Amino acid sequence: MTTLTVAPDSPFGLHNLPYGVYSTPGSPPRVATRLGDSVIDLARLLHDEVFAQPTLNPFMAQGYDRWGAVRRQIPELVTGDVPDDAVHALGDVTLHLPIEVADYVDFYASEHHAANLGRLFRPDNPDPLTPNWKHLPVGYHGRASSIVVSGTDIVRPCGQRKGKDDPAPVFGPSTRLDIEAELGFVVGTGSAMGESIPVEEAERHLFGVVVFNDWSARDIQAWEYVPLGPNLGKSFASTISPWVVPMLALEDARVPTPAQDPQPLPYLSMQPPWGLDVELSVRWNGQEVSRPPYREVYWSPAQMLAHLTVNGAPSRTGDVFASGTISGPAKETRGAFIELTWGGAEPVTVGGEQRTFLEDGDEIVITASAPGPDGTRLGFGEARGRILPARSTPAHRADDTGGTG
Amino acid sequence: MTTLTVAPDSPFGLHNLPYGVYSTPGSPPRVATRLGDSVIDLARLLHDEVFAQPTLNPFMAQGYDRWGAVRRQIPELVTGDVPDDAVHALGDVTLHLPIEVADYVDFYASEHHAANLGRLFRPDNPDPLTPNWKHLPVGYHGRASSIVVSGTDIVRPCGQRKGKDDPAPVFGPSTRLDIEAELGFVVGTGSAMGESIPVEEAERHLFGVVVFNDWSARDIQAWEYVPLGPNLGKSFASTISPWVVPMLALEDARVPTPAQDPQPLPYLSMQPPWGLDVELSVRWNGQEVSRPPYREVYWSPAQMLAHLTVNGAPSRTGDVFASGTISGPAKETRGAFIELTWGGAEPVTVGGEQRTFLEDGDEIVITASAPGPDGTRLGFGEARGRILPARSTPAHRADDTGGTG
Repeated sequence: MTTLTVAPDSPFGLHNLPYGVYSTPGSPPRVATRLGDSVIDLARLLHDEVFAQPTLNPFMAQGYDRWGAVRRQIPELVTGDVPDDAVHALGDVTLHLPIEVADYVDFYASEHHAANLGRLFRPDNPDPLTPNWKHLPVGYHGRASSIVVSGTDIVRPCGQRKGKDDPAPVFGPSTRLDIEAELGFVVGTGSAMGESIPVEEAERHLFGVVVFNDWSARDIQAWEYVPLGPNLGKSFASTISPWVVPMLALEDARVPTPAQDPQPLPYLSMQPPWGLDVELSVRWNGQEVSRPPYREVYWSPAQMLAHLTVNGAPSRTGDVFASGTISGPAKETRGAFIELTWGGAEPVTVGGEQRTFLEDGDEIVITASAPGPDGTRLGFGEARGRILPARSTPAHRADDTGGTG
Repeated sequence: MTTLTVAPDSPFGLHNLPYGVYSTPGSPPRVATRLGDSVIDLARLLHDEVFAQPTLNPFMAQGYDRWGAVRRQIPELVTGDVPDDAVHALGDVTLHLPIEVADYVDFYASEHHAANLGRLFRPDNPDPLTPNWKHLPVGYHGRASSIVVSGTDIVRPCGQRKGKDDPAPVFGPSTRLDIEAELGFVVGTGSAMGESIPVEEAERHLFGVVVFNDWSARDIQAWEYVPLGPNLGKSFASTISPWVVPMLALEDARVPTPAQDPQPLPYLSMQPPWGLDVELSVRWNGQEVSRPPYREVYWSPAQMLAHLTVNGAPSRTGDVFASGTISGPAKETRGAFIELTWGGAEPVTVGGEQRTFLEDGDEIVITASAPGPDGTRLGFGEARGRILPARSTPAHRADDTGGTG
């Protein structure tokens, strides 16, 4: 047996208990929780085969009451002696994508971000926010298959771009590769087609939260996104943290959202405070360049889920929706480099070099933390990714030959 | 044993052999093909358990060479005597969603449609096409979980809309519920993250084609879609035909696409003709109101798949991408009612009544056919759906109470 100890001020103490999926060499992936720097196999701890699975989905599908029961059960089991085969050191395991992603939607829920991007992308518009922005959480569906776990390398995407003065678009590796520091919300149980999830019931459907980096190729995005929204500028990769922090662990992080004016339509009206006081940190090659505050985000996760389903669209276990870039009012709280460097016009100094967008070899690590009980903090794990050079595929090599139409 | 016969001019003759998933009362869904009005259980015919599955995905994942081998094997087995338990009358079975949909992307590939919608949605723009339209196939990700099989009822969606002169948006059932007559393309085998599928290799990845109805709530769409594209105006439902017509059955339907000018970038250049001479038929309460011609669509399925993956986005077995509304140059070939009725200004007569958009109880049936060998035709089955009234959910009932913000 192993006796587990954890420092009282650990961000992965008994007040957190996030869920992830780990493996050791030669063994298939299984569900675990994390206590300090120990990874605890939940199938072995709880003697329940729902955790002897390569994703959290079967457990999530058991629903809200079960999530609470398991969360109450774990602390007493890990504070005594724990079977040796249930415990691994964090450094000895591989962490996997913890969920099988069903549908993925990215929102645009930070007013500071939306206003900054409006000024940069649509400078001729007098109002940087589109007329709908304060009436509904604007969002779009993204590619579920390119959501990857922290540590996955990111190949620089190729695509079409066209500068303002270029006579025709050109093809090649993105020259304006960016990040978006976000939170992702994992749907534990969904709703049938034709039904909807009212805002006051969102809590029973939302399983947990991950750190989310929505890598973005701004040059590809700018050329493609009118009129149907972002596609290839986003679809090549999104990175999530390996640990899903339960919504049930975030009770002490609940804060009101910023004041919503005009008052939203009734289906988006919230009673309890539904904002979250989660603070993110963005490190670029090891140097912190931004601290985006989720508490500044205008639309709450409950509002986003209510909106997504109010038209009767079905939702499923494993759906993920993300907040969109989190930016605060101050420059050093902007969650995307296009904002931080104002479209590239105001470089930041990273490791003594001037940077605007990402260069090959750059590494981004986004972490987050939130208040826990009694002055503690909760950790979120990290969303880490390194940029690899664009690949020379047949399609790319053909770039300098004539097309045949 | 049963001896199968099929009329030489049947649209479901030996030249077609589409794949679907059927069940009989008390038995789980399994893969079948269709010959005339007979449904043939492929696990029983071919003694292969890959067909004793509730979706086509395991078979599709076996790849292009295997698809060809099975297609060559079926005709000799069904022209002799067939085991009784392998054959069912079409009317005796339930047809299911034939694929487990992975990622879903909807394109906007018909020039006539894009130009018509540009004129209707953006009347102030001098060019109805956006500047990118002839350089890349514009598309966006949609909701995979709301793709349903023909025959599924469609509940009228609720959502926000705002007329030009309304001071604020209102919430309620859509008043401009529309269809989009499309073809959907099913990806049989995908590509890894960081890789791409060149246009000349698309053939080896594309398994088959379905008829696709992308139900659209125009009022919800018009209010929400700037700047990130359609979301709730589309996400409530898309209907597909139960039979997937193999790409391998469509050799005689290959035609050149319309001339592409300007010449696309090399990664989108096609050598063999990649258009498809598929003609759709839209029936509204039994009356044919349009015959959209797929051969008029500007971008080919090979170009759409090459574009989707050129940035290194992964693709998977079960990915579906659709053409977008198919409209020809003539009014009676427009594939959406917003075009057919010019935004509601020019009603059509359906069963003696004047109609613009869909009313509760209306039924839409979209079918398609294509040339086969020796003057035959191939049938596509149908995408059928009936509109049910909007549901009164708690969110809707709250509509006339004050919000709490």
